[in-house]
Parts: sequence; structure tokens; C-alpha cells
Amino acid sequence: MILDKQKIDSLNSDGLTLHQNKIQVLKDSIPNFEEVISKLVDFQIAIPSWALGTGGTRFGRFAGTGEPRNIEEKLEDVALLNDLTKSCNSISLHIPWDIPQDYDALRAKASDLGLHFDAVNSNTFQDQKGQDFSYKFGSLHHVNKDIRQKAIEHNIEVIQHGDKLGSKALSLWLSDGSDFPGELNFRGAFERTLESLQEIYKALPDDWKFYIEYKCFEPHFYSTTIADWGQSYLLASKLGPKAVTLVDLGHHLPGANIEQIVSLLLMEDKLAGFHFNDSKYSDDDLTAGSINPYQLFLIFHELVEGLDHKGKRHATDIGWMIDASHNVKDPIEDLLQSVEAIKLAYAQALIIDQNALTGAQNNNKVALAQDIIQDAYRTDVRPLLAEARLRSGAALSPIKAFNSLDIRNELVKERGLHSVATGL
Amino acid sequence: MILDKQKIDSLNSDGLTLHQNKIQVLKDSIPNFEEVISKLVDFQIAIPSWALGTGGTRFGRFAGTGEPRNIEEKLEDVALLNDLTKSCNSISLHIPWDIPQDYDALRAKASDLGLHFDAVNSNTFQDQKGQDFSYKFGSLHHVNKDIRQKAIEHNIEVIQHGDKLGSKALSLWLSDGSDFPGELNFRGAFERTLESLQEIYKALPDDWKFYIEYKCFEPHFYSTTIADWGQSYLLASKLGPKAVTLVDLGHHLPGANIEQIVSLLLMEDKLAGFHFNDSKYSDDDLTAGSINPYQLFLIFHELVEGLDHKGKRHATDIGWMIDASHNVKDPIEDLLQSVEAIKLAYAQALIIDQNALTGAQNNNKVALAQDIIQDAYRTDVRPLLAEARLRSGAALSPIKAFNSLDIRNELVKERGLHSVATGL
Amino acid sequence: MILDKQKIDSLNSDGLTLHQNKIQVLKDSIPNFEEVISKLVDFQIAIPSWALGTGGTRFGRFAGTGEPRNIEEKLEDVALLNDLTKSCNSISLHIPWDIPQDYDALRAKASDLGLHFDAVNSNTFQDQKGQDFSYKFGSLHHVNKDIRQKAIEHNIEVIQHGDKLGSKALSLWLSDGSDFPGELNFRGAFERTLESLQEIYKALPDDWKFYIEYKCFEPHFYSTTIADWGQSYLLASKLGPKAVTLVDLGHHLPGANIEQIVSLLLMEDKLAGFHFNDSKYSDDDLTAGSINPYQLFLIFHELVEGLDHKGKRHATDIGWMIDASHNVKDPIEDLLQSVEAIKLAYAQALIIDQNALTGAQNNNKVALAQDIIQDAYRTDVRPLLAEARLRSGAALSPIKAFNSLDIRNELVKERGLHSVATGL
Amino acid sequence: MILDKQKIDSLNSDGLTLHQNKIQVLKDSIPNFEEVISKLVDFQIAIPSWALGTGGTRFGRFAGTGEPRNIEEKLEDVALLNDLTKSCNSISLHIPWDIPQDYDALRAKASDLGLHFDAVNSNTFQDQKGQDFSYKFGSLHHVNKDIRQKAIEHNIEVIQHGDKLGSKALSLWLSDGSDFPGELNFRGAFERTLESLQEIYKALPDDWKFYIEYKCFEPHFYSTTIADWGQSYLLASKLGPKAVTLVDLGHHLPGANIEQIVSLLLMEDKLAGFHFNDSKYSDDDLTAGSINPYQLFLIFHELVEGLDHKGKRHATDIGWMIDASHNVKDPIEDLLQSVEAIKLAYAQALIIDQNALTGAQNNNKVALAQDIIQDAYRTDVRPLLAEARLRSGAALSPIKAFNSLDIRNELVKERGLHSVATGL
Repeated sequence: MILDKQKIDSLNSDGLTLHQNKIQVLKDSIPNFEEVISKLVDFQIAIPSWALGTGGTRFGRFAGTGEPRNIEEKLEDVALLNDLTKSCNSISLHIPWDIPQDYDALRAKASDLGLHFDAVNSNTFQDQKGQDFSYKFGSLHHVNKDIRQKAIEHNIEVIQHGDKLGSKALSLWLSDGSDFPGELNFRGAFERTLESLQEIYKALPDDWKFYIEYKCFEPHFYSTTIADWGQSYLLASKLGPKAVTLVDLGHHLPGANIEQIVSLLLMEDKLAGFHFNDSKYSDDDLTAGSINPYQLFLIFHELVEGLDHKGKRHATDIGWMIDASHNVKDPIEDLLQSVEAIKLAYAQALIIDQNALTGAQNNNKVALAQDIIQDAYRTDVRPLLAEARLRSGAALSPIKAFNSLDIRNELVKERGLHSVATGL
Repeated sequence: MILDKQKIDSLNSDGLTLHQNKIQVLKDSIPNFEEVISKLVDFQIAIPSWALGTGGTRFGRFAGTGEPRNIEEKLEDVALLNDLTKSCNSISLHIPWDIPQDYDALRAKASDLGLHFDAVNSNTFQDQKGQDFSYKFGSLHHVNKDIRQKAIEHNIEVIQHGDKLGSKALSLWLSDGSDFPGELNFRGAFERTLESLQEIYKALPDDWKFYIEYKCFEPHFYSTTIADWGQSYLLASKLGPKAVTLVDLGHHLPGANIEQIVSLLLMEDKLAGFHFNDSKYSDDDLTAGSINPYQLFLIFHELVEGLDHKGKRHATDIGWMIDASHNVKDPIEDLLQSVEAIKLAYAQALIIDQNALTGAQNNNKVALAQDIIQDAYRTDVRPLLAEARLRSGAALSPIKAFNSLDIRNELVKERGLHSVATGL
Repeated sequence: MILDKQKIDSLNSDGLTLHQNKIQVLKDSIPNFEEVISKLVDFQIAIPSWALGTGGTRFGRFAGTGEPRNIEEKLEDVALLNDLTKSCNSISLHIPWDIPQDYDALRAKASDLGLHFDAVNSNTFQDQKGQDFSYKFGSLHHVNKDIRQKAIEHNIEVIQHGDKLGSKALSLWLSDGSDFPGELNFRGAFERTLESLQEIYKALPDDWKFYIEYKCFEPHFYSTTIADWGQSYLLASKLGPKAVTLVDLGHHLPGANIEQIVSLLLMEDKLAGFHFNDSKYSDDDLTAGSINPYQLFLIFHELVEGLDHKGKRHATDIGWMIDASHNVKDPIEDLLQSVEAIKLAYAQALIIDQNALTGAQNNNKVALAQDIIQDAYRTDVRPLLAEARLRSGAALSPIKAFNSLDIRNELVKERGLHSVATGL
Repeated sequence: MILDKQKIDSLNSDGLTLHQNKIQVLKDSIPNFEEVISKLVDFQIAIPSWALGTGGTRFGRFAGTGEPRNIEEKLEDVALLNDLTKSCNSISLHIPWDIPQDYDALRAKASDLGLHFDAVNSNTFQDQKGQDFSYKFGSLHHVNKDIRQKAIEHNIEVIQHGDKLGSKALSLWLSDGSDFPGELNFRGAFERTLESLQEIYKALPDDWKFYIEYKCFEPHFYSTTIADWGQSYLLASKLGPKAVTLVDLGHHLPGANIEQIVSLLLMEDKLAGFHFNDSKYSDDDLTAGSINPYQLFLIFHELVEGLDHKGKRHATDIGWMIDASHNVKDPIEDLLQSVEAIKLAYAQALIIDQNALTGAQNNNKVALAQDIIQDAYRTDVRPLLAEARLRSGAALSPIKAFNSLDIRNELVKERGLHSVATGL
């Protein structure tokens, strides 16, 4: 299903006057208004192919309807998201859930839809049907060299897929770990992992990045071999400049100051980017900004400040992706909410009075410093996002448009009620 | 597969002299030696039918081999466990994973194997194939009365199954909750849950108990409608004397003092019993005693002291069950380890010098009080368990016996390599 | 120091036009505008006497300047806060940190300043100089009856102080607990606490409330005798209708869903009210709304909805107090920030479209329900608070007024640089 | 007070026969018995000078009695501990709580008592009386260069004190952090800290180590500038080989796998050593092994295995210190319990069958691997510690000896009931 641009324009015209009034007020009060709008127009968030279907928990999965049945339909869903927001112009594939067959055709289709291919993701945390070996006890850290080799080869294969599609990064989440004290020799596991990563690193094209994710626990519950930013950083440092650390917001122990980690990784030129989601407990994979939107804002505050400091005036040097699991919401609607929340946080961070803040910090005026950042946070910046969308030809109100255009029903008509996304 | 008692006896005779030496030493140092042994002989832990196969996480399941294919084979696995330990003389069924067909035959088989039926468990956290409604948004707390009614009827059906098998308790884990702020009206959810529970309570035979479990999170990640002991207790109080609170060790927020909760529930005559497992993070469902055995001991310390105080000299008034998910271990071996750890904790608690402890507490001699309980904890009580097993006709060393008798391979021969336990 | 009303009016006139423009926009978009303003005008938050000086941690205290030296000066600080906000018309005293001498004079002074006396707080968590017994091992739960009696008498004395000043509630935070397994018999501690509370309850005037606070840990690190809402609720239920549960936002384990607890306590008519603060880790006692403002909003969402349901259209039936410890900020500035954050959360909750929300909930439209509450949260409601202040004769911008009127320096002139607040 | 060796011998003779019986059994079952005893004899834990008095919380301090009034008496307390255990032959001083006056006399006294000086500790987390600047907003990370310089100079002074006393390490706990979002620029704070540390590093003698501690939170509650092992490691790497990371067991977020961190730091030659204590919530500073003794054992398991791997057959290359705060116990009795728990964990780790464990790990026999380490953990190794003490001339039962020799009362007679340890 391809959205008719006319329909969006027609919806937009309804709310235009009210929008323009709101924008006028913000224009008066935000000194860097045009710069903010321009950065919001540029800011793009990759959509992971697996987020287009309904996820589940270990206790079961409650399916949605009209889910995309193959890569092509996943591309179409991303195009829908992008047409509504002009903020999602790429897809992140996951191998083997999305194995491309005809690369040229796929690139052409993506290009027609205004999309390209973001980081490719490997998977050694599951056994695939018919596999004649098992990742039950790990993959890149496995005690058995043969199984490590299989996992290395899989990652190299994923690079090759990505290369043919125009991706520029391999994203690795290594779930290897242990469930019981005694099960694993930590040092050995780390050394074997490093060795395996070095083999993969060698196969990486020069202009690629190697995103190394960390996660405190799950699916293993005693230890995870790449469990925190320090372990990811240590590996990335030993590997070389192409290797960088990926931050998934849900992969931290309770109370971790994620924004401080982001600031330090940026300082060290080792920040790969983000998997956005929100959580109250652990890796809950909830909609970005649904639980603690202030934290999301604080992370963007560090990014805006840090990127400026690095002389990278745009956020485009960083990899941005949503990684959430949509159990009780329509996946597209949920992604629209995530995109909105992420961009709101970015917009709020962009309007912080940085000079005033630096002044307050340099004089230890703590209450004032808090007021300065909360002044930005408390501002209703939704019209800024709408303005950026309007200028890019997207919908003034993406979620309203999604519902009034009855998009899910259209998809159900096309795909059937009980279609299941590959990989689920 | 039925264990040959001769084989166990023959294995036992090997280690007998060493065992007797160890027992002699303990006999000299433990004043209530015979009482401890007798309580250990009596102490029985129910085995849940779903723990006999290999569990998984939301990221996948790595199957084991020779898993029981039906209720009858699950009974046989429990019988194996019981023959090795004489500590597991009952099974806890889960409907609809184990739907009994011929009640009389099943009771007869159980009886032949020396087993009976513990609490029956209902399941409204999954949709079953072909179900014409969905528990996606809850069951007993659902906003839709028809769906609540379905869930009520399911629970009543489970009671009926249990009644015909000789069970005396319905165990309810209500997964109902919400994933996003705004999704649910908490008060409404609580009130609807109470109403639903009242309907189920009415259907409960007079000599039954209604176990109401609580869980802080998962599968829902913003709220759970029965989230903590206080909420379970509140419901149980409103329901009546048959309703009691079930404690699953993995269902608490980080840092919760579980033993204090146990002590208070026991004081209020509202302690149903336990689902034993261990965890480092959340509901990890690891082998009991594998992560924090001291906590397990402290829980038993409260139980021993509290049961004595209530004049219930034996632990048999409480429901004991293992609830763990065996991802990387052989399920039977894992259950043997759980049984051993639970009984070790019980034995350690039984040899605490309660008079000396009360004296220390009444004089605020904190270091002394710690020494008294750690003196019990640091004692190697494994020979006590072995002695209890020996007197009951079980194996001196159950895990060694399991391995030297090559039981898993025997089961694979019987059931095939890739058999899958019902419900998985 | 008494604020000159003229000065506030003069400051207000500066920002008036801009404010009126903002209000006009909100008036158009908020259907219940006048009701919201009226509720904001009525809403009052008590100031604890101990929050007017600079707090510390166990590692040290870094003093502020010009702190109030006695109860009279503490009253004056509260009057300053109230003159700036018209939202803080009462003070909560803490005995023995603030022992009143001449009750009539104190009531007259408070009355002159437009203030009254909120709940009185007892203290049995510290030994006072010259005390001939010790609370080292607890107070109301102590194994020694004589020490329990001392603690009971202290609480009754606090009631008597409060009664003479016009207070209507005794607020009890019982720090009693234990640091090591074995130290305490939990059941005994609970029973002794209940007995002690019953003695205090008897001494409570008929129109008083007994606020029973709970806290998960600190100052004791293994157990706390009133550790969670369930334990407080259990005690309050046994005591009677005057006893209710007080919620301090910083007294929960990581991940606790506080808003759900609030909803249930309100449902059961057992919600005393709040100690507001914010925290990232444990009882950090940070400025309200400084770490997770969305959580504060969600709590007010439950309150607004629950009070409406109970037919209590105003929030004045609940006890509201700030309880934070100002280590690195000026205490008055910090309290102004807390008051602002609390009222913002209240205002956001008041503009939620409750009918639409109920509709979304009853149809399980999860994304829509989130949108409805986030629509309120994302609205910039600061002008609503300003309007309520303007109508009450307070400052349009309290913090700016505090700074431009150079209030702290005036206080330093009066009280000296190194004055220390009583109790610190 | 100096312990009379005769008295210890006389106490020891009472329990000797029973002890010898127990040892005989262990000798038979532990293949490396003599090696274990020898390592236990060698193993020494430093006592921090501040642990000899009674600590407190931010809510108050309940003093003990007969506390040491000066460095000399602190040395005597350590000598008492050492005479009872022969496991504590050094003291760790804290400047400015213990400022040495006459270095030669102090060294001589220590030497007479059989003691030496372990790592010296600096303190920039408190202002000292009469200090004309403040660490309120940090020290080594302060935005003001002058204050950073003061903190640098203090650390260099501490090195000089230590150098004259024979210490070989500076132990730095930097409490610098922030309490509110916006207060601090994280990157700036890290860079300034690094610069300051480099200045101190320059002043470090060649044969010294620089221990860099980390802590997740407290006394600051939003960010800590050296918050986790990764941040400490990053600084230590940039500083050079003398800089190493110190692990305090209570300084981690809930659920952190400390033993894995230990293993990796050891692998990287960056493990300074430990501050031992135990905790249920955060930095509770409870007696080692009082809350989770299994975790302590697992840490020692990594140490024993890792040191062996590094070819460091003894544990003496690592810095071991207790860092606990004794609120409700007699400090000496508490330290005796900590020493016992630490050495028990070490002994249990030493008797693990490492070959069998490696075999199980290399074959992914998870249940077996757990059995192997739990076999060691469940062994009652108290007689091994007693034997090591007996061979060293210490007490068979140190705590019993402390009590039966009535040591605290002797100290009260010498020092008075209300003596207060310097620094408290």
C-alpha cells in the first residue's frame, strides 16, 4: 500500500491555521528557530524490520492484523511511516528473519519508496530450523571453536548481504552469557569473544562501522559476556576505529545514568548510536518516551551538546534506530508514537539556552541550571515537529492521519487478517 | 520408565560407610538430630508438570531430549524424582497444558507410582488455538464482562478437573496488567478482579484453598493488577479464609525482604506456600539456591520459627512447589538440584539454636544473633539429607544416581530424541 | 523578613502582557479552564520546618547561609514562600527539632503571616542529648517495654504540642528495623509496633488523623518494620479509621508503581497524603519533579481521577507536603522549584480529557489512551499556574522574584552568614 | 591494651581435641590441604582506621563505648584484631581523620605491634573546620581551577604522609558528582578529573599504586563522576600502569555481576583490590558475608582462578581491605566477623576442584559445574581457618576469645565510656 500524497495534503489543510498561530508564538520565543526546524527536517530514525509485526513475551504472543509478510511489505510499511513523518527513510534488516533474494530489485524498490538500508543485524541467539549445531551455550564466546566459526561466518554473511544493499554498518547484539555460577569462565569467554570479533572486523569494508551492543541480562540470567558499556568499550578499543558501542536504552541496570555514558562515549569517539525504547523494569521494549520522557530529553541534551562540541553540527553522524516490541498496540501506530517522542526530546534539547547553561554550570548555580533545561523541556514543542513535517511534505498529525486514512484496514485487505511478519 | 529399587540400593551401599561416619559426627553436635531427620523425611515438594520439559525465553527455546510427551509420562518423571529423593510425592498440573482425559486411570497410575495431585493451575495468560476471544488485554480484570466470564469459567473448570483428581487447591497466577500509562484504570481493574475472584471462590469446595500469586512485572511492564503481597493479601482478605497468598521467590522488586513478607503472612494465617526458584534480576526462574542460597535459608528460618509459634510443628500445612524454567540444564537434574537446595535450607533452619537466638534478640546482641544463625548455615548438613533419604529408601546421592543409571538416555530411548513436553 | 506586597505587584506588572497572551491561547483550548484555575488557587502544600535549612548526607553537610535560627524564623521563611506562591499556607513541625514554647504567641504569629500548622512529626530515630535511654535498637518495636513506653509517650507529647497549635494530624515515620539477618524477630517486631501504635491511637483527638509512613530501607539495611504500603495498610486497618497510610515518593524499591499504590489506597479510604520529593536511586530527597516529572504527573492523574470518583472534587482532603533535603541548592529556591513542579503535574492531570480516556480504556485502544494523557502532559501549563498566582496576589514568577528581590541576602543580613537551622 | 599471648593459648587448649578431630576429616577429603592452610596463613586483610569506631547514617549516630581516641589507640585495636586472627597485620589511614605527628614513633609502635601501614586514603568529600574554600560542588572535578588545585595538593600531601610511614598505595574515593540534571557537564567533569589525577599520578613514587575507586551513587544522587568500573578503568588506562581500579562491593547498581568485573580487571592487570562489606540495597556497609555469602565466595572463586592463571600463586599481590560501618555492633566484634567471612569464602574457593570444573565448562555440563563449586561452598571449612590461626599463634575462636577475655570492657576502662574515634 502506497499513501496518496493528495490525501495527506488534504488532511493537512484542515489544521493549518491553528498550526500557523502556534508556530508564530514559538518563532518569537525561540532565537534559533530556523536552525531547529532545519535539524528536525534532517533528523531520520531507522525502522527495524522486526518492529513491523506484533512482538510477544515468553508467556505468549497476541498477534496483530495485516502484518507484512515479507521484506517487500516491510519496506512498504516503512514507506508509510516515512510518508507520514518524513523522519524514517531507512530500514534495518535482520538476518535470517529477512533474507534478501534479488538485491537489485530490492534496492530499486527501496529507492522508489524513498528509502535506503540502515545497519544490518546478525542473529546467533536462536537456532534456525534444520541447523546442525546449536547456539544453546553461546556463539562467538562458545567453548567449541567450530561453533564460534559458524557464528563468525554468519556475521560475515550478514555483512555481505548488507554490502549489496548499501548498508554501512553491522549491528551485533551478542546474547552469549551464562545462567549459573560456575557455568562459564568469564575470562575465557571474553577472550574467545574478542578473537571472534577480530575475525568479523577483518571482513568489514573500510567505510563500515561495527556496532557492538551491550545488555545487562536476558536471555541469560547470571552473566552476559558483553554486559555493560565498559565491556563493549573495551572490546571496541581492542578492535579498532571502526568498532563502536551501541546503546539500547533498555539494556541497563536499574538507576544507570545513561546520559552520562552517552556523553563519555561521544567524548571518546566510540558512540555508535541508539536503539530507542522505554522501560520501567528491564528490557521492556516499550514505546520511546512512554515511561520516562525526561530521561529521553536528558540523553538528547548530552547529544546536542556533545555533537556541537565535536564540531558535528548535525546528528546525522550517529546511528538512530527504534528497537521496541509492540505487544498491545498496532505496530505502525506505536512506531509513530516513538518517532514523535524521540523528535520531541531532540527539539527540546535543541532549544536549551546553552550559553546560559554553561554560565550557570561554571558558577555552580544548580537551581538555575535546572531551570534552564526545564524551561526547554516544559515548552510545548509539538508545533516545531509539525512545522518540520509540513516543510518536508509529511502529515501535520501523523497518528491522526494513520487513523483517519484507515491504513490498518487497508493493509488487512491487502495482506489478510492473520498474516504473520517473518521472524515472529 | 520406572526405577529399579535394587539399583538404588546397590548404589547406596557403595557410599554407606563414609556416610555413616559423617552422620556420627553430626549426631553428636545436633541435639535435635532425630527430630530434624524426621522432619526431613516428611518434607515433600510438589513438582509442576511444566518443569519436566526445557523452557525458553522470548528469544527462543533450545530443546532438551527425551521430554515427557503427555501427562502419563510427566507422572513417570515425577516418580523418578521421587524414587531418587522420596521428597517429591506429588505433581501440580497446569490446565490446559495437561488436560486429564480418564480421571480414574490417572489417579490409579499416580497412586501406583506413589504420587498424588497437588494444586491445579489455571492459565488465562495465553490464547489457546481456535479460541474465539482473546486475553490480549487481560482476563479476570478485563473491561469486557464476557471475557471475564470466560476466564471465571476456565478457573471453575480447573477446579473441577482438580477435584476429580484429588487436588485440594487452585493456584492462580493472574498475569493481567498494562504496558503503558493511561491504558488501565487501576481501581477499575482491581474491582473487576475482586468480583471475578469472588465468583471463582464460590465454586471452591469447602476443604480447598485458593492460592493467589502476585508478581511485580512481566508479561506486562507498566502495571500488574496483583503486583505485590499487599495487593494479594487485600484480595485474599476480602475473599475469605480459603483464599491465601502464594509467594514465588522470583516475583519481587530488587531488594525486597521476602523473608519478612513470609513471616507476616504466616502471622496473619494468609501464607499459601511457595513457588521456589532463584534469580539475580527478575523472574529468572533459575534453580533454587543457585544464586543466593543464604536468602533461601533465611526464608526457611522464618518458616521454622513461625510454624513452631503457630503450633504447627510440621511444615506439611504449607504448599511447597518448585517453579523454575530449565533452559540450559537437563530438567530432571535441575529439579534434583532444586530439591537438594531447598531441603538443605530447611535442614539448616531446623538446627538453629532457637533459644539462644531468642536470648540474643531480647538483649540486642546483634553480632551474637548473626553468629547463631550462621553457625547453622555454615554447618555441612548434606549428610542429614542423605540420612533422611536412606531411611526413606531413596538414593544417597540422587544426582550421581541419575547420571550413573543413565536415566536420560533411557528416556530418550523410550520417547525419542525430539519429544516435546505438552505446553511448550 | 516580610515581603513587601508592592514589590511583588511591581514585578508582576512587567510580565503581564506576555502572560495574558499565553493565557488567552490556553483559555481557548482548555474547556474546564476556570475550574482548573480555581483548583490551582485552592491547592496548598505544607512546608516541613526541616526543609528550610541545608541538609546533608552521612558523608557531611555543606551549610548554606542565612538559615532560620528558630521556629519563628522558620515561620517567616514559609511566609516568604507563601507570599511568592500563595500555595504554601502551612508549616509542618518536627519535635524535638522545633519545640514550641509559647503556643499562643506562635499561633498568633502564624495567623498574622497567613499560615497555620499542618501535621506534627515525631522523632524516635535519634537520641537527644542527655537522653538516659537509647533508640539504637528501635523505639516502638523495641524488645524492651520501657523504651517502647518512652517512644509512645513522646508521640503523645507531640500530639499535645500539635493540638495546642491547631494541627489535625500526627505524622509518624518509624525508622525501626534491623541491619543483620537474625537480629530481629519480624513477627515480634510487628506485634510490638502494633501495640505501641494502639496506645498512641488512643491518645489521638477524634478529629485527627494518624499518618503512618513506610520506607523500604534506611537507616536500617536488612529490614524495616514498616517497609511497604502493605505493612502500613495492615497496621492502619487494625488501628481504625483515623489511621491512614502516608506515601513518601522516595521510599519505594526500584520500579515500584507508586501511582497504582496511590489509586488503591484512595479506593480503600486509606490514603493519608504525600511527602513529595524525587529520586533516582533511593531516598535521595531531591527536588520534586527534578528526575522523573512524568511519574509525578501520573500520580496526580490517579489522584484527580480517584478524588472525582470518591465525590471529593477538591484535593484538599489529602495531606500534601514536601519532604526533600536541599544539599546543593538554596532551600527556599529549591522549595519554590518543588512547589512549581508539583502544581504543574496537578494542572496537567486536571486537563486530561477524562471522558475520552475512559472511552479509550473501555475499548482497549492503548495507543489512543497514551496519546490522551500525553496530550495533557505535553501542554505547557506554566501560564495556568501563573494565572492562579496572579489571582491570589502571588508572584507571576516566584523564582525570578526571589532572586531579583535578593531575598537570601536580606536573610543573611538579618540572621548572619553562618546561622544553623535547629535540628541540623 | 595488649593481649596476653598466654591467655589465648589457654583458651585454645580447651577446644583443641574437638578441632583436631574435625581437621582430620578435612585432611582426608581435601587433596591440597596443606597448600590451602598455607595460603590461609599468608592471607592478610588491612583494617581501615575509621572502622574502629561506630559509624552512623544521615539520620544519626548511636555511639559505642571505649572507642580509640587517636592513631596510637587505633593501632592497638588493629593489633588486638591481629593477635586474635593473625590475619590483619596492617592499618589503612585516612587523612585528615588520622594525621600522623611523629612518623618514626608511629612506625616503631606499629612495628612493635607486628603491624605495618597499608594504603593511605585521601578525603575531599568533606570540608574541614576552618577551611577557606569548599568541596560542596566537588574537588578534583570542580569547575574552579583553584579548588581542583587544593584537592590535588591534599592528595599529594597524603602520599607524603604515607611515604614516611611505609605505605605503598594511595587509595582515592572521589565522591564528586551532581544531584540534578543540568548541574554538571559530564564531559567537562571527566576531563577535569583526568587532568587532576594526572597531577597526582606524577607525584606518586615509582613503587606505589594508585587505587581508583568507583561508586554508582551517594553522596550525590544524579551522577557520580567515577560511577562504574568502566569509568575507573578508562581513567586508569589513561593514567598509566600504576593506576588500578578498586572494587568496593557496595558500590554497584542492583544486580551487577561483580565477580565478572573482577575477572576482567584481573585479566587486564587493572585490579587494585577490594573494599569488603556486604549490602542488600546500596552502600549499606554491612559486615562482609552477612547478607550474601555466596556472592563473596563467587568473587573469591574468580580471584583464585584468575591469580593462578596469571601465575600469581598467592593472593598477596592484591590489596584487601574491609570497609564497613558498624552501626549496631561492637566494631571489633564486627571486624572479626568480616575477617572470618572473607577467609571462609577464600578457603571455599581454594578447595574447588579446578580441573573438574574446567572439564565441565568445556563440555557445557552446567549442572555438573554448579555441583562442583557448590560442593566446595557447602563444605564446612571453619576448621581450616581455625587450623591456620592455630599455626600462626592466633585464637582458635576469635570472637569467643574477644568475649571471654572481656576485651571491650578493658578498653572502656582504659579509654572511658564515651571516647569518640577521630573522624567520627
